[in-house]
Amino acid sequence: MSEVYAARRTRLRERCNAGGSAAALVSRPANVRYLAGAAPRGAVLLLGTTEDLLLCTEPPEDRPAAGRPDESLRLRVLPGPGADPAVAAGGVAEAQGADSLAVEEHHLTVARHRAIGSAAPRLRLAGLGQAVEQLRVVKDEEEISCLRIGAEIADQALGELLESILVGRTERHLALELERRLVDHGADGPAFPTSVGTGPHAGRPGHRPTDRRVEEGDFLSVCLGATYRGYRCEIGRTFVIGTSPADWQIELYDLVFAAQRAGREALAPGVAHRDVDRAARQVLDSAGYGENLPARTGHGVGLQIDEDPQLTPAAMGKLDACVPVTVEPGVHLPGRGGVRIDDTLVVRPEADGGPELLTITTKELLAL
Amino acid sequence: MSEVYAARRTRLRERCNAGGSAAALVSRPANVRYLAGAAPRGAVLLLGTTEDLLLCTEPPEDRPAAGRPDESLRLRVLPGPGADPAVAAGGVAEAQGADSLAVEEHHLTVARHRAIGSAAPRLRLAGLGQAVEQLRVVKDEEEISCLRIGAEIADQALGELLESILVGRTERHLALELERRLVDHGADGPAFPTSVGTGPHAGRPGHRPTDRRVEEGDFLSVCLGATYRGYRCEIGRTFVIGTSPADWQIELYDLVFAAQRAGREALAPGVAHRDVDRAARQVLDSAGYGENLPARTGHGVGLQIDEDPQLTPAAMGKLDACVPVTVEPGVHLPGRGGVRIDDTLVVRPEADGGPELLTITTKELLAL
Repeated sequence: MSEVYAARRTRLRERCNAGGSAAALVSRPANVRYLAGAAPRGAVLLLGTTEDLLLCTEPPEDRPAAGRPDESLRLRVLPGPGADPAVAAGGVAEAQGADSLAVEEHHLTVARHRAIGSAAPRLRLAGLGQAVEQLRVVKDEEEISCLRIGAEIADQALGELLESILVGRTERHLALELERRLVDHGADGPAFPTSVGTGPHAGRPGHRPTDRRVEEGDFLSVCLGATYRGYRCEIGRTFVIGTSPADWQIELYDLVFAAQRAGREALAPGVAHRDVDRAARQVLDSAGYGENLPARTGHGVGLQIDEDPQLTPAAMGKLDACVPVTVEPGVHLPGRGGVRIDDTLVVRPEADGGPELLTITTKELLAL
Repeated sequence: MSEVYAARRTRLRERCNAGGSAAALVSRPANVRYLAGAAPRGAVLLLGTTEDLLLCTEPPEDRPAAGRPDESLRLRVLPGPGADPAVAAGGVAEAQGADSLAVEEHHLTVARHRAIGSAAPRLRLAGLGQAVEQLRVVKDEEEISCLRIGAEIADQALGELLESILVGRTERHLALELERRLVDHGADGPAFPTSVGTGPHAGRPGHRPTDRRVEEGDFLSVCLGATYRGYRCEIGRTFVIGTSPADWQIELYDLVFAAQRAGREALAPGVAHRDVDRAARQVLDSAGYGENLPARTGHGVGLQIDEDPQLTPAAMGKLDACVPVTVEPGVHLPGRGGVRIDDTLVVRPEADGGPELLTITTKELLAL
């Protein structure tokens, strides 16, 4: 694996040098992990002029879930508390003779930025922008394989829940049980706080579970994901509780299903992000639900559950092959509930069979 | 409750005006919650010259755990995605006629700070420092009551675990079960990731649970906490698995117990933070464990699990009454394991009975 991380750092160094900086400081944890193999507590990565260095305040953990620092990197553990690896890295960069250091201005606080400037006064601090986030958008097959395993785990956890009795249980308990099952099946942990919404809460994006109990006739929507080796996927499904869904439930479900299918089918290399959003959105829009739609219908996933690209009406840019995204339109009717269907897929060219669906739990309307 | 939040904002405004700023922008979530009663997603609080305003990207959640925004504050929900409430707040401050705005430079990123400057070019951006964190150190009885309930919940969860069979179960499963029990007993959630360490992992501060199973003869150390109405407490205990602890285990336990008791007994208003640390530390130091001790033996708790004061050898400042802190010395012997004992207590004057112990699970060495 060491070559993978070294190659990623080489690509970043090229971008950085092209931007006029001899050295770069990466501080955002997911970016550190991407380039160094692990991000121990407080870790920052210095791409120096003479040597790369991983600085942290604690030694790396010996758990597969935490990753393993690339052995070709020199590791420096600073004594705590209060030591800031970013400040120490500034000093190292200056000592290496760098005249400018590109930093992650979207992650470093004003106070830390100033402390680096004080510790290394001869260093010009420049902006690295979202260079690492941009490198992270297209995944390699190793990364996709972690997402695929995470998706399998989430499918398993959800499948087992559906076999149990749901009526009378609270949203909070169902969410906890799903999270336990994720870990049982080998996840590092949940990819994000599991959302379970029943009745009027169903279909609300990001709903935090309450003590409301599942009742006959409810919509029940569930959104969960597993983290596996640091990679985070997402699946969301909506069910009906009881033997026979009401007509409005079937209609709403069919509509959201059609929107979600349209979004999935729009995924292909070269397609504009906004066109994927529009494909899903216009189905709901033309049925009269335009006003209550969420701001986006999907987003990238990877080392973070919410990465680029953003699938929104105003998004710029086009999809590439090997970009994993969610497609997750939904409709929520205040006071009544709603439907949300969410898959994680990998963009693949037509010749490779089109988009690869990672979350394979059925999307038929199940009455439980 | 509204008066409580208004009074806190008044105190902050006084500090802020004394520092030469007419307006202040609070962005750190725990600080926002402290001053506004709740911190909906992305929320920032503007203490303006003519009006205070809570700006966020999502409406407040209707859950007790999330708190409820002070109704005397005007609420503005910005349409997402991409809207930054901090930038919007800068514009409002400028429109209100403020000439300078104090911001939390230890929380705002360089990029957000610059965006505020661009949106409000006539506004001078000053530093608010850790003014809100300083206000938060001394708690009122309402806050202490939330910590007390959280501690009771953690005690219950731990007590139930001790009644179950432990041998053969993995650290990860024990940690998950504890977290489930915390929620069962009414916690908003765990206050931090539950730590369970067995055998060679026992006593390691911040140990992340692995798949190692509990074995006869192990030390087992557990550290957990409940969040209740936003307030986070902490308890840590170490047990021996099996009927009769080994001599080295009894000796090490007694030593750490003595150190922890010395730390607890040192807690009183007016005592220097470093003297509390020294009281606990010197017991371990004089027994020859000075080299492997963690950097601190305790810390404040509240809306965050790790707040001021820090109980370290170099800490400045003195304890006040009504400051909740942990006392948590420990010794970890690489390859063998160790002991850690951790309580949450509230500093109280002698006349009120001395330090109030919130986490009351026994600290006798239990053989399970």
